[in-house]
Amino acid sequence: MSAPVYLGIIGVGGVGTAFLQQLARLPNAPKLVLLARSNQTLLSPTPSYSPAIPAAEWKTAVEAPSLTKSGALTHDEIAGYLASAPGRSILVDNTSDPALASSYPIFLRRGVSVVTPNKKGFSSDLALWKEIFSAANEGNALVYHESTVGAGLPVISTLKDLTATGDEVTRIEGVFSGTLSFLFNTFAPASGSSSAKWSDVVSQAKELGYTEPDPRDDLNGMDVARKLTILARIAGLEVQSPDSFPIESLIPSELASLPSSAEGIKEFMTRLPEFDGQLAAIKEGAEKAGKVVRYVGSIDVGKKEVRVGLQQFDKDSAIAGLKGSDNIISFYTRRYGSNPLIVQGAGAGGDVTAMGVTADLIKVIQRL
Amino acid sequence: MSAPVYLGIIGVGGVGTAFLQQLARLPNAPKLVLLARSNQTLLSPTPSYSPAIPAAEWKTAVEAPSLTKSGALTHDEIAGYLASAPGRSILVDNTSDPALASSYPIFLRRGVSVVTPNKKGFSSDLALWKEIFSAANEGNALVYHESTVGAGLPVISTLKDLTATGDEVTRIEGVFSGTLSFLFNTFAPASGSSSAKWSDVVSQAKELGYTEPDPRDDLNGMDVARKLTILARIAGLEVQSPDSFPIESLIPSELASLPSSAEGIKEFMTRLPEFDGQLAAIKEGAEKAGKVVRYVGSIDVGKKEVRVGLQQFDKDSAIAGLKGSDNIISFYTRRYGSNPLIVQGAGAGGDVTAMGVTADLIKVIQRL
Repeated sequence: MSAPVYLGIIGVGGVGTAFLQQLARLPNAPKLVLLARSNQTLLSPTPSYSPAIPAAEWKTAVEAPSLTKSGALTHDEIAGYLASAPGRSILVDNTSDPALASSYPIFLRRGVSVVTPNKKGFSSDLALWKEIFSAANEGNALVYHESTVGAGLPVISTLKDLTATGDEVTRIEGVFSGTLSFLFNTFAPASGSSSAKWSDVVSQAKELGYTEPDPRDDLNGMDVARKLTILARIAGLEVQSPDSFPIESLIPSELASLPSSAEGIKEFMTRLPEFDGQLAAIKEGAEKAGKVVRYVGSIDVGKKEVRVGLQQFDKDSAIAGLKGSDNIISFYTRRYGSNPLIVQGAGAGGDVTAMGVTADLIKVIQRL
Repeated sequence: MSAPVYLGIIGVGGVGTAFLQQLARLPNAPKLVLLARSNQTLLSPTPSYSPAIPAAEWKTAVEAPSLTKSGALTHDEIAGYLASAPGRSILVDNTSDPALASSYPIFLRRGVSVVTPNKKGFSSDLALWKEIFSAANEGNALVYHESTVGAGLPVISTLKDLTATGDEVTRIEGVFSGTLSFLFNTFAPASGSSSAKWSDVVSQAKELGYTEPDPRDDLNGMDVARKLTILARIAGLEVQSPDSFPIESLIPSELASLPSSAEGIKEFMTRLPEFDGQLAAIKEGAEKAGKVVRYVGSIDVGKKEVRVGLQQFDKDSAIAGLKGSDNIISFYTRRYGSNPLIVQGAGAGGDVTAMGVTADLIKVIQRL
């Protein structure tokens, strides 16, 4: 058997909690030696990095006298702690923190591999993307981030397999947001009909917990733009930043300047019905053409074009027929010809996102 | 950089040729030291295992005086040659030979990893399946066989990720044969209609090269049954053999005893029109219920049931809407809930099958 692998985790929100549950049930799990939340860090004492933190009982482990407790550590300190472990180590970042993402190169250069569903490191400035992968190379460390696009769906691994084996990816197209999938599948279903107003559908999704706490974080299209940025870069396009291509925002321009405070959210939701007519007109326009409207992202690799926004689709198309909050991603390639390779299913949710993280973790351990 | 990895390939048919092309373009490709076809073996001379065989010019490499030429070697001899290489080694089996598949344990026990699209080793007797994986364990070698189901589509890797991360797979369902997909998509399209006779569709598929040389090898359902056997075993069912569950054959019983000779094939194709009425009745039966008929495989993990045969599907279902010779595989799991994780696309063809082999090869090299 191979030497033990040491694991540090930052973030215990929805995905983090689900990941800890999966980790606790993993055979041959790595040794969990660091668990950090915003203001608290739990560590296995140095220099032995033992005992490990029990993943199943991490909530009560804080009371264990054999573990070290501390306030928030700097990213530098965490990287130093993991890099000094008596074996290879892995950081799992279960936050969506851009500052932590900017610190990945510090970890990687010191030989600490990174596994994460955090999109920020891979979808921000192109310079950070390049620095992450050169740092990984330098530190002989690995970076896996399947869950940054489509949660646990095999999207990034499939795209990497296509390009690594020499296929030519010509176009990637799909529905990349579970929230926007739900909104349009409900607002403009492909079979049957709906008389629901747009603002009602948004309210319903918010109440069901399908949107971010501030629904504008879904409606502005930035989450989709970040996912497209990641895929386009893997496909070989040097996308400068997630706002360097056209993004159609579903936030009415009149409401764009409302503050992001709780009052701002409230006023946004209160005033959203004023704009129901706009979405109704878009829906009816599509219906007159026998189609439905969907919020999609697309990458034309040859033309180097990335686009995010509304598009009309035939009612019998796979995109129109999506159910619930499913994602669908179509890869058009030279080898696959006119019928794309398609991956479809839930693209959000704690359990399936954590599944992508856990599967990545297993692969990194196998390679270390 | 890691130590060089040594590669032996058996089989240079359709998939083998496409694989050699992909291998030739691979950065950091392993050293190709053995290339075997039915009656001829090309080897890098021992003890240096150098020079390597040029993957791009393997056809002319036979003339190179620096390489060793030989007739057919036994599997034992090939295993010995690869196991004695001055580094880790991999066998790529690009044949569909059951005898070679039965020899995988010999390779694996000696530390030679196996990568293959050959279904035989994983879908024959359960004892061989078990022996393969225990031999791999013993020899600290790896076995990857993504292309045994759905060619290059991420089917096996997805199922393994689901189970390895602790999801519970409850049901797997899909169209697993590109040939039967084409036959039924053409014979009973979901949109529009077709007046084509069953025997004409089979003839057309045969002429297009979509069927095996003997179309009965597709119509008997055994190819689908073998794929289901593999998936069921990965999902945890101890399927004894590919004929230990119900398989609906599309070969009319009156023609079942025709010999497998060229004359037998000819007589089969000549007499097939006599049975057009049977398939027409099945098609019409489905149409009366507003459905279409498709040839599918399904695994109910809870009930431990595997089935292969004809089933009716709603015209707006994903299975009914398949195009060309595409495969579709739906994974129903606890985490994914009522909407399955779906993988869809071409499930046959030299290039996409070879892609699965090449992607597996890359993963094995990364882990060795």
